Amino acid sequence: MKIGVIGGGQLGRMLALAGTPLGMNFAFLDPAPDACAAALGEHLRADYGDLDHLRQLADEVDLVTFEFESVPAETVAFLSQFVPVYPSAEALRIARDRWFEKSMFKDLDIPTPAFADIQSQADLDAAVASIGLPAVLKTRTLGYDGKGQKVLRSAADVVDTFAELGSVPCLLEGFVPFSGEVSLIAVRARDGETRFYPLVHNTHDSGILRLSIASTDHPLQSLAEDYAGRVLKQLDYVGVLAFEFFEVDGGLKANEIAPRVHNSGHWTTEGAECSQFENHLRAVAGLPLGSTAKVGESAMLNFIGEVPAVDKVIAVEDCHLHHYGKAFKAGRKVGHATVRSVDRATLDRQVKLVESLIKG
Amino acid sequence: MKIGVIGGGQLGRMLALAGTPLGMNFAFLDPAPDACAAALGEHLRADYGDLDHLRQLADEVDLVTFEFESVPAETVAFLSQFVPVYPSAEALRIARDRWFEKSMFKDLDIPTPAFADIQSQADLDAAVASIGLPAVLKTRTLGYDGKGQKVLRSAADVVDTFAELGSVPCLLEGFVPFSGEVSLIAVRARDGETRFYPLVHNTHDSGILRLSIASTDHPLQSLAEDYAGRVLKQLDYVGVLAFEFFEVDGGLKANEIAPRVHNSGHWTTEGAECSQFENHLRAVAGLPLGSTAKVGESAMLNFIGEVPAVDKVIAVEDCHLHHYGKAFKAGRKVGHATVRSVDRATLDRQVKLVESLIKG
Repeated sequence: MKIGVIGGGQLGRMLALAGTPLGMNFAFLDPAPDACAAALGEHLRADYGDLDHLRQLADEVDLVTFEFESVPAETVAFLSQFVPVYPSAEALRIARDRWFEKSMFKDLDIPTPAFADIQSQADLDAAVASIGLPAVLKTRTLGYDGKGQKVLRSAADVVDTFAELGSVPCLLEGFVPFSGEVSLIAVRARDGETRFYPLVHNTHDSGILRLSIASTDHPLQSLAEDYAGRVLKQLDYVGVLAFEFFEVDGGLKANEIAPRVHNSGHWTTEGAECSQFENHLRAVAGLPLGSTAKVGESAMLNFIGEVPAVDKVIAVEDCHLHHYGKAFKAGRKVGHATVRSVDRATLDRQVKLVESLIKG
Repeated sequence: MKIGVIGGGQLGRMLALAGTPLGMNFAFLDPAPDACAAALGEHLRADYGDLDHLRQLADEVDLVTFEFESVPAETVAFLSQFVPVYPSAEALRIARDRWFEKSMFKDLDIPTPAFADIQSQADLDAAVASIGLPAVLKTRTLGYDGKGQKVLRSAADVVDTFAELGSVPCLLEGFVPFSGEVSLIAVRARDGETRFYPLVHNTHDSGILRLSIASTDHPLQSLAEDYAGRVLKQLDYVGVLAFEFFEVDGGLKANEIAPRVHNSGHWTTEGAECSQFENHLRAVAGLPLGSTAKVGESAMLNFIGEVPAVDKVIAVEDCHLHHYGKAFKAGRKVGHATVRSVDRATLDRQVKLVESLIKG
């Protein structure tokens, strides 16, 4: 079976590492000459709107999936004429636009911070008056890793801010005094079977994920599964979906979903019986889902800008390096480490050893 | 770091799957147009004696390693002029010739079945008279998976048998009434640090490995490590070496070594903290070795001739498929499954489920 992937970055690379042992081959469509997934499959170097190359991809592969959600709707619609596409055009339409996403949460009775659609500075002024400050203004589409957003703390922060973010459709979101951030990685098969990994505690810095720790018997696990289950069913979703929540007053408020394998699920490569990458491929290929059970206690540390000295990283017992083969550049995700230990105390100790190798 | 691999079969493929997350790239030299490792790296399609392509490989990579031992000595010598080669020419010289191999065991006081060098039918007749029957006549080089050998049970079996095996140098080996076959996967770093995986029980059929089960606290572990350690030191070995033993009267008799990652170590991908593939690459690249500790209880089942239906194989809980992407052909190793379970009883049950999928 040959899988087409829109995007050829590290998520595509890790999908190929997981799918090759299942007998799958891969083709990646990505305009970047140095797309790091290209080491593991065919690289169609073309823009995401290049219909000739999209047609070529559709002709070559058995199905198409995505490693990022901001794929143009036209790309998805075009591909869908020729080849199965998972997740569906509808799932991508919702997930790539914060307004559609939040509106869906509201429709499904999933708690989420107060929000308003912002099409002008006047909309913004009105929404700030209603929601209050602090609040966060985010572009409706194309935001990631803290990009395309601005925290508004005072009235002065609000002046001309719509123009500052490019006068594009935005979403204003009330600031939530959360006690923690957790994410749930879910996978849903073509036949509707759904499985969930254990909730993950996430720590961000400057909008970029730094550390994920897989939980054990988290008290909010079943609530998170309930919420995610509603979304998966509503979208008739196929594949892995990541659901980010804020922990607020012992409950959860939905932050956002990502219709793809997710950074906060990278620990599953070593830390779960079947990884998020393999489970995504199993789902889209119509194969039985794999076990989401934990193997030991796991954490994931991102390497931002550069990968520390390889010999030092892999000398840490229990540590597994995932180098993306990308050029080092400030602020860029270039690798991560999974630490999998027999117990939480050992895990915490080994995580500190890896942290001590990260400059910064 | 770019690694050159002589041979582009499934062992090369699994080396690349293990090395890519370390940031390594791969080039495979293999004359086969459909070399299955080619999906994961550059494929130099050339004969092993093609000096132009060997030179090209040496120019492109940081070091060269092997996925099979019957590489011509001239190939190794040629490459060694330009680039580091691990394991060494000397290790390959010994390991690819059964006479040198057995003589080394004898020199190192490692018990091994009675053996004799056979250069003619007269040599064979004399050796049979001395060693007795049953015995096994094996070509000194190029044998694998039971090929290039004949079991001699009666005097009639001995007649003209030297010619039957091609009138090439052979080794006669006394038949050993063994109670089991075990193998030890060892890895030795450039600085001499050596680690061992737990002993593996192997079951063969028609000369081909069918089932490997990793042991726990095997009473012969330290004896096997002692024997293997002597060989590793003698050869100043770098990389993974597999050592096959017969269990005889509560002790071990050396059968053979393989200077490479080995089929009986495939379970380590899921079943050990650091796999044989990653540890081989760590060793040859001069990186620190990884832990050889077991994760759960593991077994490996080979798929010979064909891979059973993928959906059925991966529906078995605890089962991890490794499809080599090779054309199916009777007698050919085309994939394997690792089963990793929390305890031995569960393991045995799940192994039976996988076995039931393999056509007899």
